Amino acid sequence: MFISFEGTEGVGKTTLIRKIHEHFQQQGKDVVLTREPGGTSMAEQIRSLLLAVNHDELMSNDTELLLIYAARAQHLQQVIVPALQAGKTVLCDRFTDASFAYQCSGRGLDQTKLNLLNDHFVSHMPNITFWLDAPIETGMARARERGALDRFEQEKVSFFEKVRAGYQTLWEQQPERMKRLDATQTPEQVFAQALSYLV
Amino acid sequence: MFISFEGTEGVGKTTLIRKIHEHFQQQGKDVVLTREPGGTSMAEQIRSLLLAVNHDELMSNDTELLLIYAARAQHLQQVIVPALQAGKTVLCDRFTDASFAYQCSGRGLDQTKLNLLNDHFVSHMPNITFWLDAPIETGMARARERGALDRFEQEKVSFFEKVRAGYQTLWEQQPERMKRLDATQTPEQVFAQALSYLV
Repeated sequence: MFISFEGTEGVGKTTLIRKIHEHFQQQGKDVVLTREPGGTSMAEQIRSLLLAVNHDELMSNDTELLLIYAARAQHLQQVIVPALQAGKTVLCDRFTDASFAYQCSGRGLDQTKLNLLNDHFVSHMPNITFWLDAPIETGMARARERGALDRFEQEKVSFFEKVRAGYQTLWEQQPERMKRLDATQTPEQVFAQALSYLV
Repeated sequence: MFISFEGTEGVGKTTLIRKIHEHFQQQGKDVVLTREPGGTSMAEQIRSLLLAVNHDELMSNDTELLLIYAARAQHLQQVIVPALQAGKTVLCDRFTDASFAYQCSGRGLDQTKLNLLNDHFVSHMPNITFWLDAPIETGMARARERGALDRFEQEKVSFFEKVRAGYQTLWEQQPERMKRLDATQTPEQVFAQALSYLV
């Protein structure tokens, strides 16, 4: 079982993942908790490059996309695929849907590029994806409270509106896999809603 | 004019590039000297990841390829394309042919992946490519003299034989663009041979 968690900044992904992790552990399941970009020592180094705000040049959209997929390839080979093959449950904070929402819908990058990277470099897709959805301002206020903003978090509200619209598109296109959770609810309510899809 | 220089370790690329650079400067040409992976501040950070030998996990072939193309996308946008558009001559130490020779021929990576990255993420190809060819042992002895070996230079002779065979294939397939230089000659002779193709 491979479950990914998606959504814009500050919608409560981390809290939900922790709750589901505890729930599965109580059931005696072997769970791997991971995140993207990152999840391995090398992929986390790529993440640092992606999130750093002190670059002395603008990162091109192609570079951003290819770095994300370089990290993803390493993450798949090193963590996700071995865990799934060993029968473990993988909970992953963001996966390919984030690339569609942020790079294509948000940045306006050609979706053809994303599709071919997915087709040739992504061997396993999540069985279920929870999209935590809330108005952008709600989430951004929470993200700001967490401290210094990274290169993505520093984007404008209009960027995140496009990201949210990207997730909406995916949800409409793939209702079997993508489950929308109302992230304006309390963490307990969000968790209960998620559980209802896991039964 | 976009010229790339290819070949296995220690075949004399740097010396030839320096000589051609001086030659063009004497002709009053505006020349940009650059290299891959790298050529911009961000791409050089990606290069460091690629060449480092102290990783605590094995880099997957897909990750290696995608990191190289992430650096290349940045290099194209930041350096190569602006220089060509300004009418400058670009001399680049390695480009896409190296990805075919090292990643596909050397590592055995599926060429389909390389082709689609070239088709979608590489906007400009060299007008002429000099392939400096010499027996592997000759070059490796020179590379060893230069000091500590990077992650690629630490590969076995059998790997570099496959890389050399990859360059040979490209040369046979694209004789218009790829020019083979006999790198067992003196630097002056190699330079003279290169110049004969630039007239």
